[in-house]
Amino acid sequence: MKIITGFHAIEEKLKSLEKNSKATLFYSKPGPRVKKIISFAQSLSESKKVFIECRQVENHDLEKLVSTLPELARDHRGIVLQLSGNQKEESNQIEFSDLKIYLNSKLKTKTENQKSVIMILDSITDPHNVGAIIRSCDQFGADLVILPARRGANTDSEIIARSSAGASSWVPYMIVPNLTRVIELLKEEGYWIYGADAGGENLNEFSSKSADKVAIVMGSEGSGMSRIVRENCDKILSIPTCGKLDSLNVSVAAGILLYRISQ
Amino acid sequence: MKIITGFHAIEEKLKSLEKNSKATLFYSKPGPRVKKIISFAQSLSESKKVFIECRQVENHDLEKLVSTLPELARDHRGIVLQLSGNQKEESNQIEFSDLKIYLNSKLKTKTENQKSVIMILDSITDPHNVGAIIRSCDQFGADLVILPARRGANTDSEIIARSSAGASSWVPYMIVPNLTRVIELLKEEGYWIYGADAGGENLNEFSSKSADKVAIVMGSEGSGMSRIVRENCDKILSIPTCGKLDSLNVSVAAGILLYRISQ
Repeated sequence: MKIITGFHAIEEKLKSLEKNSKATLFYSKPGPRVKKIISFAQSLSESKKVFIECRQVENHDLEKLVSTLPELARDHRGIVLQLSGNQKEESNQIEFSDLKIYLNSKLKTKTENQKSVIMILDSITDPHNVGAIIRSCDQFGADLVILPARRGANTDSEIIARSSAGASSWVPYMIVPNLTRVIELLKEEGYWIYGADAGGENLNEFSSKSADKVAIVMGSEGSGMSRIVRENCDKILSIPTCGKLDSLNVSVAAGILLYRISQ
Repeated sequence: MKIITGFHAIEEKLKSLEKNSKATLFYSKPGPRVKKIISFAQSLSESKKVFIECRQVENHDLEKLVSTLPELARDHRGIVLQLSGNQKEESNQIEFSDLKIYLNSKLKTKTENQKSVIMILDSITDPHNVGAIIRSCDQFGADLVILPARRGANTDSEIIARSSAGASSWVPYMIVPNLTRVIELLKEEGYWIYGADAGGENLNEFSSKSADKVAIVMGSEGSGMSRIVRENCDKILSIPTCGKLDSLNVSVAAGILLYRISQ
């Protein structure tokens, strides 16, 4: 059984359900937003071959349903989606062993001017930032988000689903024990590795036109990329700024790089 | 007495203290980050004419100091800055009646190619987003952030200081009861008003070269700009995206517009 909270995250999960999926929407007193989700679920049940049961319960039933979730995902705001255990698990997590095959199949779907863009997050700790970056990856058509397994990023799927406003239902992601190894493999596959940091090439003067395969590396909020990851980058790119603080918020910086590189 | 929490927010506040200011840093068991702030405060006391007392206390004393703050600002992480009441209040909040004078004095400091950029937030509700946008305004040299007094934005200064990583100590801001009136005044002063929304001019094809005074309007996370504000925009600009979700996170979108317009 999988439990999902958050209006956006529930809606995106409903849209991405596969045929013959079974799910239950639990809700307490329905406000306008909850009503909208319920009627959307009902329309899905009619049009697609998914089975979504909508069931009104007491608030304390909702509390019980979310009690095993991480704290950040427990604020249910009156509606909870429960996915049945026997449905096929989400298929948007890519295994390291499948990376080559996945990338090659993705490249086949590209038109001539379309880049393949991959986002690598080197120990970003705030799930709000991880979520906002995944959302930007969806919006700028990135093919993959790579997160490290241990350091930094909270890779709890409920929190990421929630803070990406549901984008994590759509954007393929990979969790790896060793970023250096995956960077090496990406280089073998012809990807250019661009790290975001101070003191690099001015993003305004940078042209990515010649590179059709690009991986962007974002470092952590406090201390940037780890030394070894930084050394493995082909180029360091810097967003030109003039402020009194050190830097932009990391999710804003990632958004600007994705915008500029996908231009 | 004013209480400030958050490593970044404390550091930025310390940097922005005026001569003869008095402040006290309370800390419990100092980790490396807290030690760094204390030695920075001590160096400031020596070099500038500010008086910062550093005082080690018990954790429950810190709890007491932050107890009157809004919930989001109460996580002190072992250090709290208290500003003495008799010091001059921060001067970066601009009054509506002073707006014309402020803008004219700002324009005099600009070089020929420097734009004057103003950010208007139309009912953005999440303080994380407000904070990240103020931080971007600092980084891209915006002259002013305008927030509505009632709708939307949490204009609590502690939370904004915290979530902007301290940028709100530097970026001048104005809180107004009526956005339409301030937009009219900005138009009279020669500002172009650009609203961010779907269905407008593609940002990639847009050239802001001819406009040296620009105000950007960002709408709320859920429903965008209010109708009346939208109608008052000279142009609607859209960031070209291709994702499955509706939109980017609002602070990411604001960052991309600031980057593009200040280019």
